[in-house]
Amino acid sequence: MAKRLDGTPKKDGFRMPGEFEKHKQCWMIWPERTDNWQMGAKPAQKAFVQVAEAISKFEPVTMAVSRRQYSNAREKLPAHIRVVEISSNDAWMRDSGATFVKNDRTGEVRGVDWEFNAWGGLVDGLYFPWDQDDKVAQKMCEIESVDTYRTNGFVLEGGSIHVDGEGTCIVTEACLLHESRNPHMTKEEIENQLKEYLNLEKIIWLPEGICLDETNEHVDNILHYIAPGKVVLAWTEDKNDPQYNMSAEAYEVLSNTTDAKGRKLEIFKLHIPTEILITSEEADGVDAVDGTLPRQEGDRQAASYANFYIANGAVILPVFNDEKFDKLAIETLQKALPDRKIVPIYAREIILGGGNIHCITQQQPE
Amino acid sequence: MAKRLDGTPKKDGFRMPGEFEKHKQCWMIWPERTDNWQMGAKPAQKAFVQVAEAISKFEPVTMAVSRRQYSNAREKLPAHIRVVEISSNDAWMRDSGATFVKNDRTGEVRGVDWEFNAWGGLVDGLYFPWDQDDKVAQKMCEIESVDTYRTNGFVLEGGSIHVDGEGTCIVTEACLLHESRNPHMTKEEIENQLKEYLNLEKIIWLPEGICLDETNEHVDNILHYIAPGKVVLAWTEDKNDPQYNMSAEAYEVLSNTTDAKGRKLEIFKLHIPTEILITSEEADGVDAVDGTLPRQEGDRQAASYANFYIANGAVILPVFNDEKFDKLAIETLQKALPDRKIVPIYAREIILGGGNIHCITQQQPE
Repeated sequence: MAKRLDGTPKKDGFRMPGEFEKHKQCWMIWPERTDNWQMGAKPAQKAFVQVAEAISKFEPVTMAVSRRQYSNAREKLPAHIRVVEISSNDAWMRDSGATFVKNDRTGEVRGVDWEFNAWGGLVDGLYFPWDQDDKVAQKMCEIESVDTYRTNGFVLEGGSIHVDGEGTCIVTEACLLHESRNPHMTKEEIENQLKEYLNLEKIIWLPEGICLDETNEHVDNILHYIAPGKVVLAWTEDKNDPQYNMSAEAYEVLSNTTDAKGRKLEIFKLHIPTEILITSEEADGVDAVDGTLPRQEGDRQAASYANFYIANGAVILPVFNDEKFDKLAIETLQKALPDRKIVPIYAREIILGGGNIHCITQQQPE
Repeated sequence: MAKRLDGTPKKDGFRMPGEFEKHKQCWMIWPERTDNWQMGAKPAQKAFVQVAEAISKFEPVTMAVSRRQYSNAREKLPAHIRVVEISSNDAWMRDSGATFVKNDRTGEVRGVDWEFNAWGGLVDGLYFPWDQDDKVAQKMCEIESVDTYRTNGFVLEGGSIHVDGEGTCIVTEACLLHESRNPHMTKEEIENQLKEYLNLEKIIWLPEGICLDETNEHVDNILHYIAPGKVVLAWTEDKNDPQYNMSAEAYEVLSNTTDAKGRKLEIFKLHIPTEILITSEEADGVDAVDGTLPRQEGDRQAASYANFYIANGAVILPVFNDEKFDKLAIETLQKALPDRKIVPIYAREIILGGGNIHCITQQQPE
């Protein structure tokens, strides 16, 4: 029912659909590690419940939970959200979970089970070990009776790619060419790997992502594919902000390229929120553990509105109680995605853990 | 997707189908506790693989496995068997798993999630704790998006009941009236509970089960409902065997009663195997742990051929390399179930753990 396949999705006629295509369901992981989430992860759990509830109004949600937290998660989540036991090392379903590919002719869905090394392994990974994270993709596919491709040795996180479902993928050099991912491979070899496993014709390389992003600047924090030919780009008008040049360079690349179908890209600029710094209280609420990236007072969080999740008919958008930019983000996205309901969720607790709503979700196509 | 329901199956129009009705799949749990299974549970794992493979030729099989053993189980089982992460305290899916009930009008299936106390709780339970076992039923139902009834406070194991799917259930007084199960309830109250949760009209009470059965003599070791009006009964012709009177009394009850539909029962006698005693080597291979029932040299095992599993079109039958009785059991069952293929599996490793093939399986109706 759930085979490990040789070959590649491209060879077998499977492609990764765009996030904006129809979903069967959304997967998430319950947060619990107290060396990443402040106050025993209780505020984060509350935020994850809000995200899950918001998505579940538009598509089914499955929450993966460890045996330790199973009863608590089941109690805290509404009954219509499915809760399954899956161990993990942390709660980033986008990155540790399966990337689903689909055969449009037969309708069959399969999983790509990338090698996961906690965003950098022994070079600059964020915690140790990551053995349970690396099994999440297979376990979710087994539950769904979905066959999987194991990309033996090729390290990738789902947040480091964004596809249009029509042959184009956007990535960052900062992440995919980092020595902590696949240092034994050339850029061309990495491109070929992506092309085989996602069924692509063209890779667009942005130099960088969001400033101080601990994932080595995943593309999903700076950009979002919202339709073929259309992207949202995190932006700032503040020339003194270190993000200014990073976004400007990305804009430069995007506006001077074409996608796999030869189209120019329409780019919607999405202004980043006012700088979010970790407070002393927030830093104190996190357990200090050797081998885990510490959270320190004054650390700037890699906050961006581009890290949203596209559900069936909706956009689940992180907001930050930011008087200046929350409203602008909602308006920008409503213009860019006029047919979808924009659902803002206060996401400070999620960004404190190092990512946002896109990072904690993974769509399974219909 | 997986609600906890008030009310009862009977009130909602659900009944437990007979095991001989069509299955959607079979559930099992991977054995691993080294204080019950000899030699690090490796020989038992091999036997469970054989059982799972045999069943999977007739219906899909899902194996529930802890995070510790997940990779090993996935490696040892063929790809077409689904492997899901579910923690447990031991591997008796019949007893800790859900009992499935079905609504014949809508086709909907639901789970009954009995309270589980490891065959006797603090009175005479077989190990401590049993908290993970008690969550197995809910977890399998969540995976299947099946709603569950939680029988708050009512203790029952799936192996202590056998139904005909038409209103009759057979149980043993030795188990259901034991002080370690529901001592606060009268026999009539227990009957009413069974009638509500399995949708029954009549309970037939056998006095006892199989000699030295550590489950307090579950009915599924001495008897098997193979069709409405037809049962198989574990039997011996040896008047010196302590089992002789136990089986004779059961025969007496069964031959002098009628089922819920007023039918007399056709009884097929299934001779038990030659006495199976635990060897010194087998006893030595089990970890000694406080609170777990010890395994000692010379202990008689509660071996019985009645502890088989009815799969779609087949009977998966425990055999013991018994020159005298294995063949007789196969012949008897082939006569009793002429339309099913009888598949014998060498099951010494399973009986050493305290049960047999019926105890380690649980059918989910179509």
